[in-house]
Amino acid sequence: MPRKPVIAVVGSGSEIEPAVSNARELGKLIAEDGWVLITGGRNAGVMRSANEGAKLIEGSLTIGILPSRDADASDAVDVAIVTDTGQARNNIIVLSADVVIACGVDGAGTASEVALAIKNGKPVILLAVGDEAKRFFEKIGKECLYYAESPKGAISAANQLLS
Amino acid sequence: MPRKPVIAVVGSGSEIEPAVSNARELGKLIAEDGWVLITGGRNAGVMRSANEGAKLIEGSLTIGILPSRDADASDAVDVAIVTDTGQARNNIIVLSADVVIACGVDGAGTASEVALAIKNGKPVILLAVGDEAKRFFEKIGKECLYYAESPKGAISAANQLLS
Amino acid sequence: MPRKPVIAVVGSGSEIEPAVSNARELGKLIAEDGWVLITGGRNAGVMRSANEGAKLIEGSLTIGILPSRDADASDAVDVAIVTDTGQARNNIIVLSADVVIACGVDGAGTASEVALAIKNGKPVILLAVGDEAKRFFEKIGKECLYYAESPKGAISAANQLLS
Amino acid sequence: MPRKPVIAVVGSGSEIEPAVSNARELGKLIAEDGWVLITGGRNAGVMRSANEGAKLIEGSLTIGILPSRDADASDAVDVAIVTDTGQARNNIIVLSADVVIACGVDGAGTASEVALAIKNGKPVILLAVGDEAKRFFEKIGKECLYYAESPKGAISAANQLLS
Repeated sequence: MPRKPVIAVVGSGSEIEPAVSNARELGKLIAEDGWVLITGGRNAGVMRSANEGAKLIEGSLTIGILPSRDADASDAVDVAIVTDTGQARNNIIVLSADVVIACGVDGAGTASEVALAIKNGKPVILLAVGDEAKRFFEKIGKECLYYAESPKGAISAANQLLS
Repeated sequence: MPRKPVIAVVGSGSEIEPAVSNARELGKLIAEDGWVLITGGRNAGVMRSANEGAKLIEGSLTIGILPSRDADASDAVDVAIVTDTGQARNNIIVLSADVVIACGVDGAGTASEVALAIKNGKPVILLAVGDEAKRFFEKIGKECLYYAESPKGAISAANQLLS
Repeated sequence: MPRKPVIAVVGSGSEIEPAVSNARELGKLIAEDGWVLITGGRNAGVMRSANEGAKLIEGSLTIGILPSRDADASDAVDVAIVTDTGQARNNIIVLSADVVIACGVDGAGTASEVALAIKNGKPVILLAVGDEAKRFFEKIGKECLYYAESPKGAISAANQLLS
Repeated sequence: MPRKPVIAVVGSGSEIEPAVSNARELGKLIAEDGWVLITGGRNAGVMRSANEGAKLIEGSLTIGILPSRDADASDAVDVAIVTDTGQARNNIIVLSADVVIACGVDGAGTASEVALAIKNGKPVILLAVGDEAKRFFEKIGKECLYYAESPKGAISAANQLLS
């Protein structure tokens, strides 16, 4: 049996809207499709919200890639991978995913994840991101970039990338 | 609901007995107990065998922590975490586990995993290891070490450590 | 005696102008000030050029932080640190520097370095970068950002940050 | 001009004799030979002592590979590389060296460094180590191992390996 697709949802650890609400819906939709959700694992912002959304669905699987031993993992993370590599864990998140969805690009951590995904040749779906982010990333990695304005649109784009 | 215990099985990538047979039984017993199995993920030796043992059990979950992008993951790994950190991924394996079981210490990679587990204060069960390994690790980390001569003995020791 | 300041010069591995010419001058000026130069170490683009510029000055010291064992280090690197952590080495470059100078932001690797520097709270001088990069990074990290249009301007900004 | 040889001196962070005295002499001899000294960089035990020994010699160069941002670097470290990779930095130390000298194997961190060096195929000189360490490492990596009973003996072995 082939391995299940792995989708990374990356985004801010702050409680920013619409990123946090979008993350919840993304997590739910990812789980409904039978995909594995991977995030930065912390109990904050987009990470927590995506994991909580996924755990609404029976049989969902959520993997959290934590930066350090004392990072506070979300209770909605099924398996916590403790990297102890600080922000370098962002590279592990994107490398482990078939598709990366950036749920907003509202902070420097998420910006690094999008950039690392592009550098590693991973497809990145930018969901509801601002114009500055779009214009910048378009300049440095348009061959990897896809756009969506809603969680459903992002899942639809992911489906096409996985097929 | 609390997170499921995570057990790391570490051992050689070579086809060495009794390590490989023990790994298969360990993987099966870990899955029967409802624990998550974590390994170095490659399609070789103790890693492959432990994952294959676990996948004999319905509902098992196997996570492979791969050294590089082009590492060949075992088909029995459910989720492949691509670290791209080479042998430094050994530190991630032991940090992510509640208990580490060394299924033999037949090579330098496994030796590094046992040493890193001790350094990080993780309990390590040495299963069917030679006298040289026992005497050496006893010198540098006896506060973390437990011994077993059979997979069942190792699981019994793990159960005590988790309770 | 206090440790010498360490300046990271980050930029594209491609032969892009004015980045490569600026990097050469930056390397020279950094060495003239008695600072240590740190780069990604490869024999390409901004990395090579900055190191070659520094080695024009007697007594200069250049450290290259390489992504992998088989990466080709510039001959102008005095000490090659082999991380074997792939693009995660970008985090090591910025964490090891007192000041980061982005010599253009022409690719995804450099973008990740600027983002990681901001995430880690390191001051970043953006030298001769395009409007898209300026507007984007201003949004996510203006508290860390400084701007320069020439290598001399960047060194002047670095001097202020170090004092 | 070829790059200067890089020698890693690894050993305990505790104040253990004869390791700490040997480390001081090793550092001095390494610097006298014009080689670069690389260590774990902390202000403790073998690391501090080796760096202090090297800095007795004019023109010496000492690089410290630190585990975390808040690690306390020895004042005798010329350039501090901040990896933020915890114990995984041990892999970076050995990969960056032409020759690794273990100044005793008195703790789990050093044991991991010797094991990682062997795993990566780096030559390791075991200086004044106990019988348990000798017997264990001989079993798993004799193709990489050399032995010395004094700092001068270790430097002589390093010289042969570098030539």
